[in-house]
Amino acid sequence: MRISELSRVSGVPVATIKFYLREGLLPEGVRTSPNQAQYEDAHAQRLRLIRALVGVGGLSLAAARNVLGHIDEPAGLTLDLLGTAHQAVAPELPDDVELGPAVALLRRWGWDACADAVGQGDETRVDDALGGLAVALAALDDAGFVVEPARMDTYADAMMQVARAEIDGLPTETASAAVRYVVLGTVLVEPVLLALRRLAQREASAARFRGSTPQVLEHERE
Amino acid sequence: MRISELSRVSGVPVATIKFYLREGLLPEGVRTSPNQAQYEDAHAQRLRLIRALVGVGGLSLAAARNVLGHIDEPAGLTLDLLGTAHQAVAPELPDDVELGPAVALLRRWGWDACADAVGQGDETRVDDALGGLAVALAALDDAGFVVEPARMDTYADAMMQVARAEIDGLPTETASAAVRYVVLGTVLVEPVLLALRRLAQREASAARFRGSTPQVLEHERE
Repeated sequence: MRISELSRVSGVPVATIKFYLREGLLPEGVRTSPNQAQYEDAHAQRLRLIRALVGVGGLSLAAARNVLGHIDEPAGLTLDLLGTAHQAVAPELPDDVELGPAVALLRRWGWDACADAVGQGDETRVDDALGGLAVALAALDDAGFVVEPARMDTYADAMMQVARAEIDGLPTETASAAVRYVVLGTVLVEPVLLALRRLAQREASAARFRGSTPQVLEHERE
Repeated sequence: MRISELSRVSGVPVATIKFYLREGLLPEGVRTSPNQAQYEDAHAQRLRLIRALVGVGGLSLAAARNVLGHIDEPAGLTLDLLGTAHQAVAPELPDDVELGPAVALLRRWGWDACADAVGQGDETRVDDALGGLAVALAALDDAGFVVEPARMDTYADAMMQVARAEIDGLPTETASAAVRYVVLGTVLVEPVLLALRRLAQREASAARFRGSTPQVLEHERE
C-alpha cells in the first residue's frame, strides 16, 4: 500500500509517519519510484505499536527507539532478559542515590536474589530497579510522607503476586516472543496497574465509608 | 532565614527557589527590605515537597501547582476526596475513549461502586480513573499484547489489596491530613509500586529459572 493508505488504515497522519521514518522507528518501505514507496501490513502493526509506546506508555522517542531495538534484535538480550528490558525503560537515576534502605527492605522480604546481586556489575543490572526503589523511598522521605512497614509489606506482597503471574506466563517457545512479552509487559502494563489502583481505592473507599465521602469530611462541613 | 540559608538547608539552588516563588509554588517570605525576605522552616519543608513532586513524582509544574493547591485548600475536596485527588494528577485523556471494555471488567470483579458511577456527572469523577484504564487497555490492544483474563484478575486482586490497606490507613482526624495522605499517596507511591514490580519480577524469575536467565534463551545460545 502507499503511504496515504497506510495512514488511513493505521489512523496515523502522513506527516507523523514520515517523522517516524526519519527517526528510524518505522522501517522504510520498498521504494517504487524516487517519490513513492510501498508499505505492508507489518508497517501498520509497527505504527500501532509505536503509538502505544509513545502514547500511553509515555516513552520519549529515544526510549521508544531503544525498546523497539530490543524487540527487533532479541539476540542481545540472552544474558539478562529482565535486566535489559527494564533498563530500556528505566528512568534516569542520580549518581548519589543511597541504596541502603532499599536493600534493607529486600532482605526483610527475603528477596535475596535481588539483594545479593547489588553492585555485582553490569550483567545483572538489578541496580537499576533497586535504584528506582531507592529514589522513590527518598522522595517519600523528602515529602514527609510516612509509609508504615506493614503497608510497605502489603505493597511487596501484592507486587510479588503480580510478578509471579507474569513470570509464569512468560512464553518460552522463542527468544523474540519472550523479549516482546517482557519489554511490552513492562511498559504497557504499568498504566493498567496504576489505573486499577485508583479504581480499587474508590471501591474500597465506598465499602468503608458507605458512600464516596469519608465521614470526617462530612462532619467538618456541617 | 535568608534565601541563601534556605538554599543551603534545602539543597535547592537559589535560582530554582526564585523560580518556584515566581511560579507560585512556594509562598513568599516576609519582606524585610526591598531586596530581602525572611523564610521559615515551613519553606524548607515545602521545597522538599515540591522537589519530590516534580522529581520522582514526575509531575509538570502545572500539575504540581494543582496538587499543592489541593493540599493548601482542602475545603474544596469535601465532596469527593479521591476523585479530586486523582484528577489533580490524572493524565490528559482523549475524548473518544471507549469505556465499554473497562466497565465490563469492573462488573466482572464486582466493583459496582465504580461501575455504577460511570457517566453520573462531574461530582463522582470516577470517569477519569476509568478512562485511564480504558486508554491503557486500548494501548495493549494496539500493540497486539494479550493479557489473559486470569492475569487481569490477578492484577485487580493485587491492586485491591493495595487499595484496602491504603484506605484503612486514611487519617480521619482532620480534612487536611486526609487530603495530604490521598494526594501524596497517589503521586509518590506509584513509583514505589512500579519499582517493586520490577524487583519482584527478577526475584520470581530467579526462583523459576534458578538463575537470571530463562531456559529457552540458554538453549538458543548453545
